[in-house]
Amino acid sequence: MSTTTTLSNNSTFTNSNAKEPLKNVIVTGGAGYIGSHIIYTLLKTHKYKVISIDNYHNSFPAALTRVSELALTELKASLPTDTSPSPQDLDSVAIDVYKCDLLDSSLVRSIFSKYSSQNGGTGIWGVIHLSAYKAVGESSVIPLTYYANNVSATISLLQIMQDFGCHRLIYSSSATVYGVVDEIPIKETTQRQIEGKEGSVYGRTKVMCELIVEDLCESSVLTGSTTPFQAISLRYFNPAGAHPSGYIGEHPRGRPENLLPLLAHMAVGTVKDPVLKVFGKDYPTPDGTCVRDYLHILDLAAGHVIALQALEEGSELNNRVFASTTETGKGSKGRFKAYNLGKGHGMSVMQIVGAMREATEFDFKTEVVGRRRGDVPELIADPALARAELGFDAPRDLETMCRDLWNWQEKNPTGYE
Amino acid sequence: MSTTTTLSNNSTFTNSNAKEPLKNVIVTGGAGYIGSHIIYTLLKTHKYKVISIDNYHNSFPAALTRVSELALTELKASLPTDTSPSPQDLDSVAIDVYKCDLLDSSLVRSIFSKYSSQNGGTGIWGVIHLSAYKAVGESSVIPLTYYANNVSATISLLQIMQDFGCHRLIYSSSATVYGVVDEIPIKETTQRQIEGKEGSVYGRTKVMCELIVEDLCESSVLTGSTTPFQAISLRYFNPAGAHPSGYIGEHPRGRPENLLPLLAHMAVGTVKDPVLKVFGKDYPTPDGTCVRDYLHILDLAAGHVIALQALEEGSELNNRVFASTTETGKGSKGRFKAYNLGKGHGMSVMQIVGAMREATEFDFKTEVVGRRRGDVPELIADPALARAELGFDAPRDLETMCRDLWNWQEKNPTGYE
Repeated sequence: MSTTTTLSNNSTFTNSNAKEPLKNVIVTGGAGYIGSHIIYTLLKTHKYKVISIDNYHNSFPAALTRVSELALTELKASLPTDTSPSPQDLDSVAIDVYKCDLLDSSLVRSIFSKYSSQNGGTGIWGVIHLSAYKAVGESSVIPLTYYANNVSATISLLQIMQDFGCHRLIYSSSATVYGVVDEIPIKETTQRQIEGKEGSVYGRTKVMCELIVEDLCESSVLTGSTTPFQAISLRYFNPAGAHPSGYIGEHPRGRPENLLPLLAHMAVGTVKDPVLKVFGKDYPTPDGTCVRDYLHILDLAAGHVIALQALEEGSELNNRVFASTTETGKGSKGRFKAYNLGKGHGMSVMQIVGAMREATEFDFKTEVVGRRRGDVPELIADPALARAELGFDAPRDLETMCRDLWNWQEKNPTGYE
Repeated sequence: MSTTTTLSNNSTFTNSNAKEPLKNVIVTGGAGYIGSHIIYTLLKTHKYKVISIDNYHNSFPAALTRVSELALTELKASLPTDTSPSPQDLDSVAIDVYKCDLLDSSLVRSIFSKYSSQNGGTGIWGVIHLSAYKAVGESSVIPLTYYANNVSATISLLQIMQDFGCHRLIYSSSATVYGVVDEIPIKETTQRQIEGKEGSVYGRTKVMCELIVEDLCESSVLTGSTTPFQAISLRYFNPAGAHPSGYIGEHPRGRPENLLPLLAHMAVGTVKDPVLKVFGKDYPTPDGTCVRDYLHILDLAAGHVIALQALEEGSELNNRVFASTTETGKGSKGRFKAYNLGKGHGMSVMQIVGAMREATEFDFKTEVVGRRRGDVPELIADPALARAELGFDAPRDLETMCRDLWNWQEKNPTGYE
């Protein structure tokens, strides 16, 4: 049985400052690594009432408590001494937290209903849909669980949004939708791959969801809707780092699968491997190891907030973003747009190890072993479209990512537990 | 609230003839045009206990009553005078009928449970999964309904099958998975298309379901299952006609979308169009009109029964079918196979009109209008693989299809109503 808790009872304050009232935004998977940093960035704008929906399968409620504390502390620090935060600003840093599985559609409906005009609310303005299972290897072993949690849950969420007249969506996609590509850096116009021998079930769930969202946007055009469905799909490259406070960060379940968290866990002693295995040093890259496009988690989070703002109908940003639609194979006419979120330049495995050696002062030993199936030499975003249309930028460098990651890991050797 | 009814209470007869006991087979969408003819063909084998699951969204319970009557009549006629059918043979022509929506997973579970060993049954041996929404045009207008009913419902059904240890599936696919092709006739190795400007939401749901089923089959290999999931996807070209008795046939909801039912309705007077619109007569085909691969509905149904038999582990047919897997882009290693069900030669719009003129003696008037978006000149199956491996054949000719269709339509001008 799911339970419902809330960190705030302040949702019904009147707006004493005559600011625009807060917009209700649901973040699914809000307590996860990416979700918690996005919510932090949303709270900092003081424009949204954030509602988190999470089943804590791969995340911790503590992340949300900490995000809220962090935002409140920063709010107080921003005010002159002897000034109290306004009720609305206080409300804007308090998260409404629901433990809820997206497949429990009646509970999700009741959450939408709670904020609806029938119940005196302003409705859900938009949804940032992040929740998904994400372990590539596991996805091939239990595919139905992945299809149910990633695809069926998204279909159900979209149906509920449609039923409640909520028509703004940010979708959490991935560079994996491109599959194995011929051209680097990768543009958004690159054809998505749903088959291909190197594909994974996880990757297929991301492509399917993009297609479904795109079809929904297109159906608004076909039916001549006056409030057409608008969606932006953000295709992540490699998010890394943490909030510089060390209050929130990544807490992988079990052994970290990704390079940076693995190095952090080795340095802090929670992973006991004596050496780091480097999979192949004979790739056609500067130092022979694979190259990936890492960006700071707070830059990624900022991209979500800009994208959400771009869903405000009639704004300059909105007009620019939807002046053209994504030129994918589907040739959608709907208000669907996909953007890469990456820095646009790559860092090799050896560069990452070097940067983490610097940040942690831990003497990582490496051992080169054979290539790993499915690894491509380089995965680098072309971020030009996101820069030109959203004004997205990812300025934080690798040193900052490693420093912030290590700060989090040192302060929280066992994460949120 | 769904209700449960049954046409038979004979499920627990002991087998007095020492024949093999009946195998429980669920047919989803059993009351539809294709479903009713498949069930008829299954009943005729006297090897299966057929369980129909249908929500009657686009079908009529009367189809099942008639199928059962037809099979019983034919059973009695096959016996010498003064001989009564055996209890098992009687059971084999009685359908267990459930009104149930596949998205009502708890009701579907209870149906699987009813036949399980815990309840004294032998379990569900296999599933023929036909139920789906199928109107191409409508699918673009209400995409979420299509994704929910076709994709989420399939994921849920597969989860329930897995939970109950049922690992044999026939999936109802379509030539539409090939999209617009360069080469005619179409082989099964042709890459599926999920994007493409001519694609439809309906078509995407079929590709997604094939991919999901394929991933499930592959996961059995990865986990080393001793009862690996086995699935055959049957890609239909253009089924037509009806059982020659005129007892069962196609009853489209609203105005018929397809050419043959439309002609039958014009001839019988339930569609009042004075002329038939022919969309384009300037295609690169013998008479300039589009060419499609029509096959008799009873041939299509027979293909399903052979495919079902091919799921019997250890049989010669089973070994042949799964000796190689379908060479699609996914490069599946699982026990997944896709076959075209078509005749392998095409009939043009004008040929169809001519054959229906002959069968009905109705003087159809035609008018050539512009081409219709999305129509390709020729869609013809290469049925060589189905012939070689399944022994599938579609011998009934166009004349027979038209005669049987007209017989059904004349006897039932308003279908089952």
